[in-house]
Amino acid sequence: MTALSPDHFALLERQGIELPSWAFGNSGTRFRVFPTAGTPRDPFEKIADAAEVNRVTGLAPSVALHIPWDKVDDYSALRSHAEDLGVALGTINSNTFQDEDYKFGALTHEDDAIRRKAIDHHLECIDVMDATGSRDLKIWLAEGSNYPGQNDMRARQDRLADSLQQIYDRLTGEQRLVLEYKFFEPSFYHTDVPDWGTSYVQVAALGERAMVCLDTGHHAPGTNIEFIVMQLLRLGKLGSFDFNSRFYADDDLIVGAADPFQLFRILVEVLRGGGFDNPDVVFMLDQCHNIEAKIPGQIRSVLNVQEMTARALLLDRDALAAAQRANDVLGAQAVFMDAFYTDVRSALAEWRESRGLPADPMAAYAASGYQQKIEADRVGGTQAGWGA
Amino acid sequence: MTALSPDHFALLERQGIELPSWAFGNSGTRFRVFPTAGTPRDPFEKIADAAEVNRVTGLAPSVALHIPWDKVDDYSALRSHAEDLGVALGTINSNTFQDEDYKFGALTHEDDAIRRKAIDHHLECIDVMDATGSRDLKIWLAEGSNYPGQNDMRARQDRLADSLQQIYDRLTGEQRLVLEYKFFEPSFYHTDVPDWGTSYVQVAALGERAMVCLDTGHHAPGTNIEFIVMQLLRLGKLGSFDFNSRFYADDDLIVGAADPFQLFRILVEVLRGGGFDNPDVVFMLDQCHNIEAKIPGQIRSVLNVQEMTARALLLDRDALAAAQRANDVLGAQAVFMDAFYTDVRSALAEWRESRGLPADPMAAYAASGYQQKIEADRVGGTQAGWGA
Amino acid sequence: MTALSPDHFALLERQGIELPSWAFGNSGTRFRVFPTAGTPRDPFEKIADAAEVNRVTGLAPSVALHIPWDKVDDYSALRSHAEDLGVALGTINSNTFQDEDYKFGALTHEDDAIRRKAIDHHLECIDVMDATGSRDLKIWLAEGSNYPGQNDMRARQDRLADSLQQIYDRLTGEQRLVLEYKFFEPSFYHTDVPDWGTSYVQVAALGERAMVCLDTGHHAPGTNIEFIVMQLLRLGKLGSFDFNSRFYADDDLIVGAADPFQLFRILVEVLRGGGFDNPDVVFMLDQCHNIEAKIPGQIRSVLNVQEMTARALLLDRDALAAAQRANDVLGAQAVFMDAFYTDVRSALAEWRESRGLPADPMAAYAASGYQQKIEADRVGGTQAGWGA
Amino acid sequence: MTALSPDHFALLERQGIELPSWAFGNSGTRFRVFPTAGTPRDPFEKIADAAEVNRVTGLAPSVALHIPWDKVDDYSALRSHAEDLGVALGTINSNTFQDEDYKFGALTHEDDAIRRKAIDHHLECIDVMDATGSRDLKIWLAEGSNYPGQNDMRARQDRLADSLQQIYDRLTGEQRLVLEYKFFEPSFYHTDVPDWGTSYVQVAALGERAMVCLDTGHHAPGTNIEFIVMQLLRLGKLGSFDFNSRFYADDDLIVGAADPFQLFRILVEVLRGGGFDNPDVVFMLDQCHNIEAKIPGQIRSVLNVQEMTARALLLDRDALAAAQRANDVLGAQAVFMDAFYTDVRSALAEWRESRGLPADPMAAYAASGYQQKIEADRVGGTQAGWGA
Repeated sequence: MTALSPDHFALLERQGIELPSWAFGNSGTRFRVFPTAGTPRDPFEKIADAAEVNRVTGLAPSVALHIPWDKVDDYSALRSHAEDLGVALGTINSNTFQDEDYKFGALTHEDDAIRRKAIDHHLECIDVMDATGSRDLKIWLAEGSNYPGQNDMRARQDRLADSLQQIYDRLTGEQRLVLEYKFFEPSFYHTDVPDWGTSYVQVAALGERAMVCLDTGHHAPGTNIEFIVMQLLRLGKLGSFDFNSRFYADDDLIVGAADPFQLFRILVEVLRGGGFDNPDVVFMLDQCHNIEAKIPGQIRSVLNVQEMTARALLLDRDALAAAQRANDVLGAQAVFMDAFYTDVRSALAEWRESRGLPADPMAAYAASGYQQKIEADRVGGTQAGWGA
Repeated sequence: MTALSPDHFALLERQGIELPSWAFGNSGTRFRVFPTAGTPRDPFEKIADAAEVNRVTGLAPSVALHIPWDKVDDYSALRSHAEDLGVALGTINSNTFQDEDYKFGALTHEDDAIRRKAIDHHLECIDVMDATGSRDLKIWLAEGSNYPGQNDMRARQDRLADSLQQIYDRLTGEQRLVLEYKFFEPSFYHTDVPDWGTSYVQVAALGERAMVCLDTGHHAPGTNIEFIVMQLLRLGKLGSFDFNSRFYADDDLIVGAADPFQLFRILVEVLRGGGFDNPDVVFMLDQCHNIEAKIPGQIRSVLNVQEMTARALLLDRDALAAAQRANDVLGAQAVFMDAFYTDVRSALAEWRESRGLPADPMAAYAASGYQQKIEADRVGGTQAGWGA
Repeated sequence: MTALSPDHFALLERQGIELPSWAFGNSGTRFRVFPTAGTPRDPFEKIADAAEVNRVTGLAPSVALHIPWDKVDDYSALRSHAEDLGVALGTINSNTFQDEDYKFGALTHEDDAIRRKAIDHHLECIDVMDATGSRDLKIWLAEGSNYPGQNDMRARQDRLADSLQQIYDRLTGEQRLVLEYKFFEPSFYHTDVPDWGTSYVQVAALGERAMVCLDTGHHAPGTNIEFIVMQLLRLGKLGSFDFNSRFYADDDLIVGAADPFQLFRILVEVLRGGGFDNPDVVFMLDQCHNIEAKIPGQIRSVLNVQEMTARALLLDRDALAAAQRANDVLGAQAVFMDAFYTDVRSALAEWRESRGLPADPMAAYAASGYQQKIEADRVGGTQAGWGA
Repeated sequence: MTALSPDHFALLERQGIELPSWAFGNSGTRFRVFPTAGTPRDPFEKIADAAEVNRVTGLAPSVALHIPWDKVDDYSALRSHAEDLGVALGTINSNTFQDEDYKFGALTHEDDAIRRKAIDHHLECIDVMDATGSRDLKIWLAEGSNYPGQNDMRARQDRLADSLQQIYDRLTGEQRLVLEYKFFEPSFYHTDVPDWGTSYVQVAALGERAMVCLDTGHHAPGTNIEFIVMQLLRLGKLGSFDFNSRFYADDDLIVGAADPFQLFRILVEVLRGGGFDNPDVVFMLDQCHNIEAKIPGQIRSVLNVQEMTARALLLDRDALAAAQRANDVLGAQAVFMDAFYTDVRSALAEWRESRGLPADPMAAYAASGYQQKIEADRVGGTQAGWGA
């Protein structure tokens, strides 16, 4: 068993995980959204909460926004607010699943007027990016159909390509388009971008600044996700992660909570493929804290990613390669599991302290009084949520 | 290929499928609930819509209610309203998933006060049953947890047994308790009644008037549902069906829409096991018409059940038994598929007409003007939904 | 409800489904391979059986071979034998999963000598193609690993690309390389070509004569297979189908037996995308008749494809398009289901007879005496199987 | 983070894991069984290998046999052989999946003569138990069908009940019948005992000495296995475990290799429910070492169970209960994960040494020369396998 080295810590120090603004609002299932005391009422308050996660962990330097949920009149004010709190505004997420007009599609809609509207929404998102300094436009294509025959999947695919091209053409400078795929939900028969293959062929047709977003909860049961990570890195098309975990469908649970070993394997492939400490691969969370406390939920999440990254860094790649070359199945597995089973928590706690951060960020947050303050202050108004 | 016989029609004539009141209200996903013109604002309007389904199909003689969604001041008035429209009030469904107090459980809750409240809610439902003349109290146990360790599953199971016993003891006369199981959602790690086995052991401990409810969308991928139908009928514990269909999770699509052959196989086992034309086995729908028209959606659904029942009746059981005895795999399969592939639609249309019903209920509804009328009349008020 | 038209029959007349030689040999599970009377002992006998399927159905004009299972000294003799019986030799399938050397990989193996051997095996397969006149070399990549860490997935992907390039470069004229993907089995942790996306990126890198093979049993639970059919046709990369059906894993059951409606949807997309009556898209079976009679099993299979193609042809595309344009979900679904539910069997039987074929090929085979003859003749020798 | 206490070690000292004799023979997939040097040729050699696992771990005091694979003329000689090597003969496993007569069923077969033969096979197994001193007869019911309609599932269930009763009635003294369930394979449409519910209702009808066997690889995707463990312990019907792990189907990989956290959760429920150190709950392995070394594979497996049991013992149940009572989701989860993430390996190594066992059993075996010896000695004869 090896220990974390200075080189490892140097890498970990550069790790940043983007938080989604919506993780601080209320969320739930179609059966119920439970409200919680202290929930933000606007994007400014969401960003304040996100900054608190960064304050106690040093791990969350940026916040992703969702349009229209995070629409404000003055994005430069929002940007200054964020920067004052030590965080940046990150990825801009569009929304094509809540407008009445999008009931049967948006970027894929047969009606040109509706499709135009959906494209324009994305152009507006790029305007927001210009104002916030965000690099990435992330498109989760919630479109699809519920019944076989309801739609012409092929024509939708072609219209999607055209819509994406129009959006892509509007990007400037370093801006990127990142296309997320999802197995199912909210559509139950077909989804227009259901798998990495579809996302890949769509973005490959656009150009170099179009990439795939991999949400760890968006796959069929049994899918080997780290294989997809490997393949997308190999193809140079892994744009970002949406980290979360799931037992069944897109449960959006805390990353690493359902299958920690899977998270380890994913991070091993990220390291193997050059995806760590790589500006082209954004680490984001996309989670819902339906029943647990939201800010601590985010703190726990970024710590889980950090801890598992540390374990992945511990993997003795030379020993592994030697065992692999010898086709020593059990030997290779032993090297692999040794890294996973090594308890890195104390070492990370010490290292955090050495950098002026709390050894135990969860405890530091609990002791900070922040939660009590927001619960007392945030009275009245409408708690943020998905507006479903 | 055989044709439907008078005996078959005699059986089909006795077929009744209970409609859920909530199918006529708005529903959707956690991402969006789209409203629709003409949606009922109260239980009286829901029942009027259900009665319309019965009027054009002759197949939907009763309506299930959901408490508190269908709470009214005067249940005898609601009952008279239904009877005036030619339908009865059916199963009463309880709700333990929306009250703030039930965030972490209801009939399984560790806090005795909350558990008492949840039990009392069911006793109140039985009061409603007394008033409406309903026989069945259906309990869908939406309870569970999202994270390993969050709860003590064993203690919850024991508390559930105690809660159910208290509810069961309150039943009188012909009243029954029907316990639904569900694989997952809204909980994402553990569900307190996740499978038929758990529902069975819980109701078997209660007594003869406690039965299992099988929702066709509540199973793990690949589950052989007709096997469970067979087993529950064999054990004398199949209380009711919640019919719907799904591709992935609990999609609540129109019954027969996703896998018609599975519906056929289920109905073959129902017939095989004496579950058809059996007052102890209630045929219900439990569906969500998120994007399609609701009343036509229900009409389509009951017709699907009727058509597939007709196909199942056509199964030549003597020929099948002979092939099975001979272990003639292809021969048995041929007999089986022959029934499935026989097109019964014209025969059923003629038979409907012979009974004074529309040959084409979908067309009859479209031509009736009912939809236009409710869209015009039902202006203002709050459209019914799940209140999630 | 419409009826099959002369145009439909003209299309159906051109339909051909390639039979796999191995379907006539013994197969089973890891638990048991049950032998059967009359099983072929060599490729000549397999082809005779395949020709019998074609004789009674007119639907199976070619036979796929598997090397080394179908190795013979004189391929021109085998070709003449086939042609004498009215069938052609079709796709050549390679085998990289049985040689001791391939225990840990073949085209992906880290050891250059083993990889060379595996490449050479494919070059030998192309030699066979030259001799048999076959166009397609089909590669099912059974390679992978059983434990995380056992192998370097990324390096294997790169070596695979190199191996495939060397094989592809050897093709001449109209010859093609068709790369199959499979979700899992025989490897249980990772498979080197697990999904259509991987197969696509690998063949796209090779060139125009490299295509994807879609085996209908090789997907994760819940996968929308017709979507993949649509996408591959859109990309011009659907080379062939391996038809079969499954309830759980790669069950290799008779096509259409597990989910007939899924087969319908697949064929609708094939027609929609120009994949029918298209020389670039080969319809093949890949099935195992573990417990049922093999020749009748193949007859049943090609008839299932024919019957379902006929239903797909009946789809009223104008009515469907109109309903789709109107976002009439139930209307579109009704048009779609109408085609599926139309019973085409009598019409096809009559049409068969009009072409001098048996109305009922299953009965014709049973009455032919062929089975009795092979059971009597094929005594001694070693029954063909997988040699696992 | 707590450390393992003397009480924990006292419990761990009593832990025993039964090894399956067949793990030492060759196994594979339907595609290929790779032979390995040193593989046993008979039950005596299998037991010698199993004893070697016990010698270096102190964890494997008994060996399960499979009839007819382990049939010998003189079971008392086999028993003495085992006892001389320090191990006992354990569970007797029957086989109803390889005899020609059982192609379409055995204990469920419609033909009384075949069913009689299958029952007699189990009576013979009980004779073996009498001779070997084994307590448990384990029945894995590999029976089922491949096509809908092929068999009458209900009648088979009734015949199964009758067959099991006849077998159960033959048991004497402490002997038990343990009925395993399995989701699918080798049958692909229906399996006669597919789930824990069916196994439970069948054994509950037999009596107190009939129990359920839970194989961790025999469930649908996404099944919460620890819930079933909890339920069966609650019902007093968990007879034994077949430990292994899987990514997709019944992969029979090394226990803990695919999802270590799942193994932890299972062991937590075993401890919670009184299933550990409980003579009524047998811990067995049921694995296939298709590509890895077999004896080291078994050593790795029992160590994995031991290590994970140690982690489960570390769970601070008081802290957990307090967090659960407070509905502190993140607090409870933190307590739970803390036990899982604690690295117990050095502590266990030291403790092993203190008991005169090798600190590193894998290394001790590698250094022992045993493998070289059996590879040299076991030349000629037929390597043991499944005889599929």
